[in-house]
Amino acid sequence: MKEEIAKEYLTEYANSTKDIFLAFLKEQNQKYSQIDPLVDLIFNRFAKLAAKGKRFRGALTQLGYELGGGEDIDAIRDVSIFIELLHAGLLVHDDVMDRDEFRRGLPTMHKQFKLDAINAGLDESNASHYGESMAIDVGDLAFYLSWDSLMQSNFSDSVKIAVARHYSEYVIRTAFGQALDVTANLRNDVAADLANKILQLKTAEYTGVMPLVIGAVLAGKYDDEFLQLLRQYGLALGWVFQVQDDILGLFGDEQALGKPVGSDLEEGKMTLLMLKFFEVARDEDKKIVQSILGKSPVTRSEVNKVRELIKKSGVYDLVVKMGKEQTTKALQLIPQITRNKRLQDILEGMLQFVFNRIN
Amino acid sequence: MKEEIAKEYLTEYANSTKDIFLAFLKEQNQKYSQIDPLVDLIFNRFAKLAAKGKRFRGALTQLGYELGGGEDIDAIRDVSIFIELLHAGLLVHDDVMDRDEFRRGLPTMHKQFKLDAINAGLDESNASHYGESMAIDVGDLAFYLSWDSLMQSNFSDSVKIAVARHYSEYVIRTAFGQALDVTANLRNDVAADLANKILQLKTAEYTGVMPLVIGAVLAGKYDDEFLQLLRQYGLALGWVFQVQDDILGLFGDEQALGKPVGSDLEEGKMTLLMLKFFEVARDEDKKIVQSILGKSPVTRSEVNKVRELIKKSGVYDLVVKMGKEQTTKALQLIPQITRNKRLQDILEGMLQFVFNRIN
Repeated sequence: MKEEIAKEYLTEYANSTKDIFLAFLKEQNQKYSQIDPLVDLIFNRFAKLAAKGKRFRGALTQLGYELGGGEDIDAIRDVSIFIELLHAGLLVHDDVMDRDEFRRGLPTMHKQFKLDAINAGLDESNASHYGESMAIDVGDLAFYLSWDSLMQSNFSDSVKIAVARHYSEYVIRTAFGQALDVTANLRNDVAADLANKILQLKTAEYTGVMPLVIGAVLAGKYDDEFLQLLRQYGLALGWVFQVQDDILGLFGDEQALGKPVGSDLEEGKMTLLMLKFFEVARDEDKKIVQSILGKSPVTRSEVNKVRELIKKSGVYDLVVKMGKEQTTKALQLIPQITRNKRLQDILEGMLQFVFNRIN
Repeated sequence: MKEEIAKEYLTEYANSTKDIFLAFLKEQNQKYSQIDPLVDLIFNRFAKLAAKGKRFRGALTQLGYELGGGEDIDAIRDVSIFIELLHAGLLVHDDVMDRDEFRRGLPTMHKQFKLDAINAGLDESNASHYGESMAIDVGDLAFYLSWDSLMQSNFSDSVKIAVARHYSEYVIRTAFGQALDVTANLRNDVAADLANKILQLKTAEYTGVMPLVIGAVLAGKYDDEFLQLLRQYGLALGWVFQVQDDILGLFGDEQALGKPVGSDLEEGKMTLLMLKFFEVARDEDKKIVQSILGKSPVTRSEVNKVRELIKKSGVYDLVVKMGKEQTTKALQLIPQITRNKRLQDILEGMLQFVFNRIN
């Protein structure tokens, strides 16, 4: 029931901001269009990729704003796209680092540009390098578009600057999370401790906390106690969100993922699920998973084998249980965060929505 | 004479901001240090690379501020490092795209991290990918450190936001210049027109105009007429700066470059010098240069051959003449920009300083 309320909130936000988002990109495109036709190509590709997002973070920004007492829904929707522009930029860079080929059902940015280079006659290696170079550039561009959209928004100067401080701090923490993630493969001792850090920085804080806190600050609500409550709620929400993403990355189907099933396995991603598995599984089962992890390509039957072993090890149930605990903890915070019944329902529904994607 | 005044201005700026720069990075390092030892490693490497800059753009920011009537030199020095943080971030990304191995006499960021991966036992290709991924991340980090340093500075909120608008617009234009530069190799018809666009966006605007304009805005001087004059002066200054960089890239020695002589040739960089050469040189000379351009490695005697042919074609003299014209044009603007004799001398000296590196 409450899950439905949250889903409606997300859908309504996504529907009502799609045009704002595209209008902003169109306006920016026109502003720089006379430079060269390449500008249109870049905006076109970026808009297509960015427009397909679920806009979960943008919706949480609106929610944070409402929780902070903000009432100008049009204003918050207008500004909140800066969070989605950032996200799109980070994904473009992330896809280069993870060597992902598909994102949101489309070829990743670096793949699209690589194809141009192949068509222009470059060899495989130079074409890859061209694609990656363009993707680095497009990501950088997205960050500055994000800042521009924040800075031109209709909020007071002091609020924008307060937001800016939180914004840069969270992205810096996210970048360190990403650095740890990229480096994890280099370390022999990938401990649950490290996986937890990555999970906390790259997702729990970035996806769960940052948008809620920024939304509240946009509403002019700065007090530490309130922001602290939002942080705790957001950490739990983000934690469950990421773990569910990891589970979907292994147990989901291709359509839901927007990329081939097994790509997480091919990347050798050290998700919490995997780490826990390596902690508890039987040696012979570990060996099997170890031999599949990082292989390319991973076959359908290998995916099924890993699924079976993860389930058998009890880790699937364990992680679901951990998610349940996080959810319960966060639920208890809700009455302190707001007394508004509608917003309480949405906060509760968000947790259910995120948690139920696990089950 | 006036060149000496400009050099002193640059040196004094560089000396007096080195500590500010390092103190900012140290403070930020401490703020995030508890995350993981990797944070210290990243800050360490970034600070080393960033601290070695000539800080030309930062000094121009201070100059723009003084031209705009600003008098608080401490305040402008404190804030101006945000321009240098941006620059360091862009260089880190640029080096990945250009596959450069040395920067400012040090291995480039992606090379440093690649070496870690080699030492950890990764093969060449995976180690390269690791190095590049880390460099992408470090660049992203630098952009957000740059924003953070601007936003936490002691200027009024409205000034900071006015600066932010210019800042994002110029970096967006720079990113398009970079995209054009990267894409130039894909196009068969690299015309002088395209090379000029790249030169304008990536250097003339970015290096010459942006710092001066931002400096003026920091001084609270926003009027269009004044900013327009600064823009014209900055475009000329930046144009000469870049062309001189291209000349140094071919005719300079290793120590001045901070990277091996011939790396521009190995990259196949389509500088204005090269473009003009291909426009005017004799077919047999073009063929020789064509056969060297993009080769790896380019030998010392090949570098000398290219030098000889460029000189013989008359393009070297032509480009020097174009630089002279740009300089003359910019000199005429100075009395309109400021009536302050000291600042007039510095503006004149900057042009001489930049131009004389060509000769």
